[in-house]
Amino acid sequence: MPIDENAPIEVTALAWVPPMGRGFVRDLRVRWALEEIGLGYRVRLINGSFGPPGGPAPPADYRSQHPFGQVPVYREGTLCLFESGAIVMHIGEKDERLLPRDEHGRARALVWLIAALNSVEPFSTALFMVKHFVGPAAASADACAAVTPFLQKRLSDLSEALGAKEWLEDRFTIGDLMMVEALRSVPDEALIAAHANLAAYIARGMARPAFQRAMAAQLADFIPDHGVA
Amino acid sequence: MPIDENAPIEVTALAWVPPMGRGFVRDLRVRWALEEIGLGYRVRLINGSFGPPGGPAPPADYRSQHPFGQVPVYREGTLCLFESGAIVMHIGEKDERLLPRDEHGRARALVWLIAALNSVEPFSTALFMVKHFVGPAAASADACAAVTPFLQKRLSDLSEALGAKEWLEDRFTIGDLMMVEALRSVPDEALIAAHANLAAYIARGMARPAFQRAMAAQLADFIPDHGVA
Repeated sequence: MPIDENAPIEVTALAWVPPMGRGFVRDLRVRWALEEIGLGYRVRLINGSFGPPGGPAPPADYRSQHPFGQVPVYREGTLCLFESGAIVMHIGEKDERLLPRDEHGRARALVWLIAALNSVEPFSTALFMVKHFVGPAAASADACAAVTPFLQKRLSDLSEALGAKEWLEDRFTIGDLMMVEALRSVPDEALIAAHANLAAYIARGMARPAFQRAMAAQLADFIPDHGVA
Repeated sequence: MPIDENAPIEVTALAWVPPMGRGFVRDLRVRWALEEIGLGYRVRLINGSFGPPGGPAPPADYRSQHPFGQVPVYREGTLCLFESGAIVMHIGEKDERLLPRDEHGRARALVWLIAALNSVEPFSTALFMVKHFVGPAAASADACAAVTPFLQKRLSDLSEALGAKEWLEDRFTIGDLMMVEALRSVPDEALIAAHANLAAYIARGMARPAFQRAMAAQLADFIPDHGVA
């Protein structure tokens, strides 16, 4: 098991999130990459800015490590990184099982990693925001109706690019890791269900033992919520 | 001048976009990186899916090069890449003026590149979408009011992280290139004006000769719009 209290790599995670966020906090992406190559890490649990209600505040010095006050922060010796996408790339450099060593394979893996982060996830995030934070309800529905087609187009294009392939290129890379993560966060199941190959691709990613271990580790680290919902 | 019809590097750009998009099409990011290191490139102009009205369609085989049908596509020998963020990283690998060679400097530059693409730009994109594509007007205003605070928080955090520094780390990198690009695309000037150091940072990036040349080259490549607005 890569969780190792004496490991030189430290990853921050949240001590508590509301139930709907569990399994979706972004330390999962880093844990998954580390699990794929069996690299040990220790976890530093911090309190997020949003809870638990009445819980302690985030550490006072945390902003110097993560300007947006989120998780994960990755520390390895004197190296201190934030942004799960950049951390996963850093881990990828350590092992060709995550990031091919030949120039073409490497560059194409990074193309898909960036596509997940900048061509798919932004539209998913936008839909999440207008779905959950716009009020009144009629305005939220209008906003969802406007944003959804942008996301649908990206999913349709991606489905066509994936076709019948197992992974986006000829083997699993951190590009797939990030794309599976982006896709499984889409806040409307019907948009994914419209593309059988994308649904199967997500399931294939989530079936990987490394993903399963990473998910179990994130869920195990949350403190009991004492009935807080 | 890096534009060189015989260069081995080819970058696609759009032959026409509506006036509001000029100077913001993403081949600019790639042109800027190439200009910073004086690396020549040739331009392949393609027709975008949205115009000019009545103009020719995008090339039939273009989807095999860019699954989302956008620009830029980058070709260099047999290498074919999309996603301007990934292309800029690929160019960064060629020259330490864009991407430091030491592990720390390199990883921190990539952190900021990803922060621009995944922690700033998604909120800016969301605001752009709800501002321009949600109707009726009251629903658009409600959606803007809901989305804007997310973007404001990222800008405020970023302003604090930048402080009085010239660049996000101790020197200009592709992290700054991408962050300046993300910030200058924020679709509400007042949100930037609220942070004098961010406004100065954008101006500093745009004052770089390489940016100026890249911008001039993008603008020069658009075909005349014959009065189409």
